[in-house]
Amino acid sequence: MTGGLTHLNAKGEAHIVDIGDKAVTQRRAVAQARINALPATVTAIMGGALKKGDALAVARVAGIMAAKKTSDLIPLCHPIPLTKVSVDIEADGETTILIHATAQTTGQTGVEMEALVAASATALTLYDMAKAIDRAMTITDICVLEKSGGKSGDFTRPSLSEK
Amino acid sequence: MTGGLTHLNAKGEAHIVDIGDKAVTQRRAVAQARINALPATVTAIMGGALKKGDALAVARVAGIMAAKKTSDLIPLCHPIPLTKVSVDIEADGETTILIHATAQTTGQTGVEMEALVAASATALTLYDMAKAIDRAMTITDICVLEKSGGKSGDFTRPSLSEK
Amino acid sequence: MTGGLTHLNAKGEAHIVDIGDKAVTQRRAVAQARINALPATVTAIMGGALKKGDALAVARVAGIMAAKKTSDLIPLCHPIPLTKVSVDIEADGETTILIHATAQTTGQTGVEMEALVAASATALTLYDMAKAIDRAMTITDICVLEKSGGKSGDFTRPSLSEK
Amino acid sequence: MTGGLTHLNAKGEAHIVDIGDKAVTQRRAVAQARINALPATVTAIMGGALKKGDALAVARVAGIMAAKKTSDLIPLCHPIPLTKVSVDIEADGETTILIHATAQTTGQTGVEMEALVAASATALTLYDMAKAIDRAMTITDICVLEKSGGKSGDFTRPSLSEK
Amino acid sequence: MTGGLTHLNAKGEAHIVDIGDKAVTQRRAVAQARINALPATVTAIMGGALKKGDALAVARVAGIMAAKKTSDLIPLCHPIPLTKVSVDIEADGETTILIHATAQTTGQTGVEMEALVAASATALTLYDMAKAIDRAMTITDICVLEKSGGKSGDFTRPSLSEK
Amino acid sequence: MTGGLTHLNAKGEAHIVDIGDKAVTQRRAVAQARINALPATVTAIMGGALKKGDALAVARVAGIMAAKKTSDLIPLCHPIPLTKVSVDIEADGETTILIHATAQTTGQTGVEMEALVAASATALTLYDMAKAIDRAMTITDICVLEKSGGKSGDFTRPSLSEK
Repeated sequence: MTGGLTHLNAKGEAHIVDIGDKAVTQRRAVAQARINALPATVTAIMGGALKKGDALAVARVAGIMAAKKTSDLIPLCHPIPLTKVSVDIEADGETTILIHATAQTTGQTGVEMEALVAASATALTLYDMAKAIDRAMTITDICVLEKSGGKSGDFTRPSLSEK
Repeated sequence: MTGGLTHLNAKGEAHIVDIGDKAVTQRRAVAQARINALPATVTAIMGGALKKGDALAVARVAGIMAAKKTSDLIPLCHPIPLTKVSVDIEADGETTILIHATAQTTGQTGVEMEALVAASATALTLYDMAKAIDRAMTITDICVLEKSGGKSGDFTRPSLSEK
Repeated sequence: MTGGLTHLNAKGEAHIVDIGDKAVTQRRAVAQARINALPATVTAIMGGALKKGDALAVARVAGIMAAKKTSDLIPLCHPIPLTKVSVDIEADGETTILIHATAQTTGQTGVEMEALVAASATALTLYDMAKAIDRAMTITDICVLEKSGGKSGDFTRPSLSEK
Repeated sequence: MTGGLTHLNAKGEAHIVDIGDKAVTQRRAVAQARINALPATVTAIMGGALKKGDALAVARVAGIMAAKKTSDLIPLCHPIPLTKVSVDIEADGETTILIHATAQTTGQTGVEMEALVAASATALTLYDMAKAIDRAMTITDICVLEKSGGKSGDFTRPSLSEK
Repeated sequence: MTGGLTHLNAKGEAHIVDIGDKAVTQRRAVAQARINALPATVTAIMGGALKKGDALAVARVAGIMAAKKTSDLIPLCHPIPLTKVSVDIEADGETTILIHATAQTTGQTGVEMEALVAASATALTLYDMAKAIDRAMTITDICVLEKSGGKSGDFTRPSLSEK
Repeated sequence: MTGGLTHLNAKGEAHIVDIGDKAVTQRRAVAQARINALPATVTAIMGGALKKGDALAVARVAGIMAAKKTSDLIPLCHPIPLTKVSVDIEADGETTILIHATAQTTGQTGVEMEALVAASATALTLYDMAKAIDRAMTITDICVLEKSGGKSGDFTRPSLSEK
């Protein structure tokens, strides 16, 4: 590894690391993303009291399908047979949309990247649908909230557990 | 359109909007993403004075390739024949990595989404390579900085021009 | 060509035919697919009076995204920059769901296959979501209803115009 | 689940359902599709007594490759490592082509969708190759004929076993 | 550019070069690949006098479909709307199979990579089908034979024109 | 099988062969490719004493990502969850670049095709980056060097072990 980066060998060259000897366990990760937008944009997307229209479903599907493309997007990710993917979208105040994505597998490596890709793609799809009315939206706070399974142990993001 | 969202028709149903009558012009967009990480992580990725190893190149390629997959990731995006894609990665202080992605086309619709997807995929790929040493990294401030070409006119993000 | 099949050369070998000299025109095609199912299945999918849930949006998105993958699925199809894709889903009596898919491009070849792929993928996605409650569903009557643009002239399916 | 649809949660939101606790068993599905066409079209595709040309091989390959893309086409399908795929194409009278597709896996979920996607893509590919000589072809009777493996038990389509 | 490599900028960073100002012209490239194999392998693939079986059609389709994936495989290639792709496979003596692939587009950049990818994928697919009977096959002499269209002028491989 | 080709059934029709009853073992393959080029091209790619620039990293990533797409490129390949992929690139004299690709899996079928696809895509990517300065490059000697795991036993290419 180079500079502590496990995906680079001693010469600094990228590779997909060998996981052939790791245990097959149930693995799960939850990631989030947040969109900061105008109040009118949040209302347009979330649908107010009526919740009509396909906006949320389209974004959810985009996140789910993106999770399945993770190893095609992130060069050094192993291909993983996901056993579950879900995406939740909710308003978090008047100017924020909060996205949670959960990925699970029974395999030899973790699914943080799959959860992060799902959350990011969901956010980008909402951005795409709303960009004509709000070009200055920002996608923020993409991070892993929880992770379980595997040798490196369980992880819960500190700032989260304190809330 | 529903609630101002152009990607939904009057019944709230998602579709890829008709751009067949829009003008073919040169279009360009620049997007950014930011990674907040531990100082040691920023050093491991950016390589300090030595800049050795593939980390930045891998992330750059991931961003560039992701830009070409935009219409496969974002459900209502038109497929676009990109004429240029580039990605820049630099340290921005001790705990931040700043990514800029530029996309261009000669076509009937803009390339904000391609630039945003490139910036996001670059950030996620850096996250993947460094996650073994810093699980609490956050990807933030994904937004469009500039956009030109097309009927809706040029756009420069206000907070940017004030800097 | 072999046996009248334009996609095979004189020796019977498959190729992607040369369209480099064809005119660039606006091209449009509408295709349909039909699902025969139990009345309870049609109600579960179409949502009765309430139309709640993501089922229709998921199927619509699947059809739209599949249209963009047509040249990746159908070996001898040219890659086409689609300018519009839409999918409509409606109940047609108690035991039938009717799907219409529309594709458009400004290019050198038609978009029948894109419309057919969208209609088929929409139907298959509805099948997937409902198969746990109705394994005996059948997808039928996949055909092109209308086609316009290009040298071969406009086409409206006879049985349709007679209805 | 919503309205009996397992792919929607209690709020009607789409997700990829958790199969992490399902048994790993050998699973198999057979699906069919049928093309109704002019007699001359059936002859052109099936090749009469001579069976020359690539038409059937191209369609077979398209079906096989599409089966491997099922989880990329059908939003809520799990990615599945297929252990076998085959496609058979035969004339069924003067105006019909009959397609059977078989998919197998050793895994935690069934392969009906893979078999259905293979049969559909085979039919669509034959349509593509013959559309210049017969625009009014129809693809019909896409359904699952048999299914085995998994908790829900074996299934043979009633109308089939009666024939 | 770095060291004469146009795909790297002055800092040595990879990018997709800007072709937005290049002329739209008809562009064509022909590439070859060669497989060296045991005589029995060449006979098994080429079919001898009978030419039965799908082997050549499968390899041809693989080459054609791979050409359409070129910009997804080669990181710095522009996505190109191909207007024609064809692949020819013939025996060249008792121990060699010779593959020619032709790609065409009307666009702003050349199609050498598309032709090379088609020829390579055709060869790899033949290898896959024959590897159980001949593990020591070698794929050689992959190169561009001809190229036309675009500012850099026409090119015919010298060694070829001398033959 | 037809003419000894396992991927064709008795009628000569292509299929993905059934591996459902094969043992799950650790499988590994090493493949090579070689690029013959002008001395200046080898220097531009390999970077001389300085090894600066992204060229090698881009090619390495292209090979690694292509390995993950093998079952999408080679029609009759099974999809395989790779557990490791690496690519090495070195100069071999003044006019040759030598590429080694290693692929590993724990599964029911071998990974020769994944290693061969990785080596080929690495070579094609180097070709793409250098083609503006050396159009007459040739990619040669693509072959499997070693293979282990599975019923057919280990294999080391004879010409290699003699060196």
